[in-house]
Amino acid sequence: MSNDHSPRTLGTVFFPDFELLDVYGPLEMFGSLANEVRIVAIAEQAGPVRSAQGPATLADYGFDDCPDLDLLIVPGGFGSIAQGDNPRMLDFLRTQAATVEIVMSVCSGSGLLAKAGVLDGVRATTNKQFFSLVAAEGPKVEWVRDARWVDAGKCVTSSGVAAGTDMALAVIARLWGLETAERIAALTEFEWHRDADTDPFTRYLDQGDIAAAMPVTHGTP
Amino acid sequence: MSNDHSPRTLGTVFFPDFELLDVYGPLEMFGSLANEVRIVAIAEQAGPVRSAQGPATLADYGFDDCPDLDLLIVPGGFGSIAQGDNPRMLDFLRTQAATVEIVMSVCSGSGLLAKAGVLDGVRATTNKQFFSLVAAEGPKVEWVRDARWVDAGKCVTSSGVAAGTDMALAVIARLWGLETAERIAALTEFEWHRDADTDPFTRYLDQGDIAAAMPVTHGTP
Repeated sequence: MSNDHSPRTLGTVFFPDFELLDVYGPLEMFGSLANEVRIVAIAEQAGPVRSAQGPATLADYGFDDCPDLDLLIVPGGFGSIAQGDNPRMLDFLRTQAATVEIVMSVCSGSGLLAKAGVLDGVRATTNKQFFSLVAAEGPKVEWVRDARWVDAGKCVTSSGVAAGTDMALAVIARLWGLETAERIAALTEFEWHRDADTDPFTRYLDQGDIAAAMPVTHGTP
Repeated sequence: MSNDHSPRTLGTVFFPDFELLDVYGPLEMFGSLANEVRIVAIAEQAGPVRSAQGPATLADYGFDDCPDLDLLIVPGGFGSIAQGDNPRMLDFLRTQAATVEIVMSVCSGSGLLAKAGVLDGVRATTNKQFFSLVAAEGPKVEWVRDARWVDAGKCVTSSGVAAGTDMALAVIARLWGLETAERIAALTEFEWHRDADTDPFTRYLDQGDIAAAMPVTHGTP
């Protein structure tokens, strides 16, 4: 396929205790469009940001010096709880959402967008096991319970963790065509869940005790 | 479930142009066992290592000062080609493989293990679109074409990129029980491909042209 436009700049927001796959599932997919997308890692301040699972990512830019963005991804994870009380984070999300082409969230990242007011009056979803907890961050949001992701045009929000990768391919299909998305899925040997409106994990709605019952201390939201 | 043993230390090897999801799919799964697994990021030298897709991970340890490991993950990606000619990398893999409990690879990471001699006489797999290219690195390896992953006991090798996440849950099921693996899949809303012996991407065997035909410059192997 031909593409006459300039590469888009995709920013990903990092914060302490971000959830690894929330970020890196989508970035694998967008990163497979290397000539079309430039990925930049952004945090409140440039430098290392440690994930909930341990490994640290190096943020290339801080909020103050990040380049103009076309696309934005907001991950979730337990670290997102503290960010809900960080006015610099909420300001950054609000400011960026006003200018980017598409803002995406994964898992509890939609709670941050909701708290920033970005999702007021917008259809959106979030992770299932802690759905009501996250939804409480945005009383004016039209929360959708049974969705793998919700494409509301400018705002595209996904369910928990792995759902972000499915969402990323849907956004790629919208911007670069279905064939390109299908080829990226083949290239990465990824079994793409193509149906936004069905989510096999809705059966765990608000059952956060699934997490509590196992030897896990990190995970959603 | 009860666990009397000490936490296991899981090392992941990073090198320039590593493939993001090769690493971070498995680490999301193992990282959900935070009380059971300590994840350490290792490179030839400690410090930032840039992925094929752009974002850099901070390696906490170099080959010379890395702690004793129980588990090891070797990712793939285009960067693995150069590592096949890096004697320090091959020595590190050979030395570690002799002492760890389980060594895992994702995608073309099995080509590195093969070149290091770790897979001689062992059943193993690798990514599908560049299968023969990677398999040529290990003429003494019993390469398995139609497998999502191959569990050969000490060595567990997966097919391309996303297959590593399926493999990680299988290793978790072996070490901590199926119920724990199932709960991690539920927690991360991950649709686990549970069957090691069937791989829907075998139909693309050696069709690297799928990658060449799209606006992609990074990806497997």
